[in-house]
Amino acid sequence: MTRIKLTLAYIGTKYFGWQTQAVREGQKIQPTIQKHLEDALYAITGKRINVHGSGRTDAGVHAEGQVAHFDIMNEKREVDWQLALNALLPLDIRVIDYEVVEKNFHARFSAIKKQYVYRLWLCKRYTPPQLYPYVWSCGAVDLCLMNEAAQYLVGKHNFMSLVNQGSTALSVTRTIHAIYSSIYQENLYECRWFFEADGFLKQMVRNLIGLLVFVGKGKLEPKQVLDILEKKDRRYAGVTAPAKGLTLKSVFYM
Amino acid sequence: MTRIKLTLAYIGTKYFGWQTQAVREGQKIQPTIQKHLEDALYAITGKRINVHGSGRTDAGVHAEGQVAHFDIMNEKREVDWQLALNALLPLDIRVIDYEVVEKNFHARFSAIKKQYVYRLWLCKRYTPPQLYPYVWSCGAVDLCLMNEAAQYLVGKHNFMSLVNQGSTALSVTRTIHAIYSSIYQENLYECRWFFEADGFLKQMVRNLIGLLVFVGKGKLEPKQVLDILEKKDRRYAGVTAPAKGLTLKSVFYM
Repeated sequence: MTRIKLTLAYIGTKYFGWQTQAVREGQKIQPTIQKHLEDALYAITGKRINVHGSGRTDAGVHAEGQVAHFDIMNEKREVDWQLALNALLPLDIRVIDYEVVEKNFHARFSAIKKQYVYRLWLCKRYTPPQLYPYVWSCGAVDLCLMNEAAQYLVGKHNFMSLVNQGSTALSVTRTIHAIYSSIYQENLYECRWFFEADGFLKQMVRNLIGLLVFVGKGKLEPKQVLDILEKKDRRYAGVTAPAKGLTLKSVFYM
Repeated sequence: MTRIKLTLAYIGTKYFGWQTQAVREGQKIQPTIQKHLEDALYAITGKRINVHGSGRTDAGVHAEGQVAHFDIMNEKREVDWQLALNALLPLDIRVIDYEVVEKNFHARFSAIKKQYVYRLWLCKRYTPPQLYPYVWSCGAVDLCLMNEAAQYLVGKHNFMSLVNQGSTALSVTRTIHAIYSSIYQENLYECRWFFEADGFLKQMVRNLIGLLVFVGKGKLEPKQVLDILEKKDRRYAGVTAPAKGLTLKSVFYM
């Protein structure tokens, strides 16, 4: 048996997220990233092979460096998994790298850090068509206040206030290593927010940026984000930002 | 009468270029950028108003700063043309700015310089899905040789060898002010080529980059691009690069 690690990029727009959903009778099977990968592996190997992702991405969320693994029986021929899978996958899902890894590697459980980027568009009058599928057009915000608030969120916290219903995580404590932003050089209205943590809860990044935009709009003092965390109640922390602004950048392993 | 100047961004993927085509009996009307603008103006004003672009962009070519103008009768109400048009246009065509201009302004004839960017993807193994609609995946090239060749193309030349059939231009002499390239900071395989000239002939940018990639692949010495120009014959200058890699960045006026 050989374990293969895949690094994947995809545009989430057309997909119902990473994970294949359980289907009730009469329901249609929704297209997911995982399903496309498993169908492609079936076409290559003739076997149903499970693909394990580093985590679920929501419907509409993009990835530039999602990681997944799967196991194959040792075969005589060597397969170039990048070329073989890319030949079968839709153009908006691409294998950007692959490698053979140790049997104890696990895309999800071996991950020690993840980086997401959330892209904001700071002008309400128009959104460039090239960016429309990748940004949240939240309008003007005070980036200075948002950066101040972000620093209160960095560190080890109970993120109960920033996790949405349906989470299956056993603990809601996570450590955020860094939150930082940059104005994209070519476009003064595009602001990218990077989030790095040992892990993220269900819709936590979208809730984090929703909370920061709340601060950036002057609806909350920067320091009040700590009160929100203290409440341990999702209802106080503002909106869940749209999925389309979010991209999983990288998953880090030891 | 008031003349309005529009600055437009669009994703060319779904459109048959800028210009509305003459339609023969029984043919379907193809969607063009110009047609969408004129239909939107009709919906707003109840009148058929011509929109004049700074130049045609081919089917599949994108724009970040195309310029157009149109005339309207003076009306009592003031119209915010950006908001009004964007409310009616498809999301992949956006008005990013507008202004009232003098009556002697003409989007095409007043233009003194244009800037295009052509995006290459230098890795054959995969193309990131986010970039797929905007790049030509030409594989590895020698950028140093291409830059050398580019310098021979800068200046005032007869570009007969780089114009495709169907051009209606009276002269094939153009002055290229600059050709330069940059590796996009976030992605070492993405190389952007900028072209600035007083004007470009039909598919000239796509032929210029096609010729440069020819040099970058070692099929031609950099200095030989001058021999190609000298031949004044399209057949010697290599391929016309795909439309999807090309974006009209800006049109400059006095």
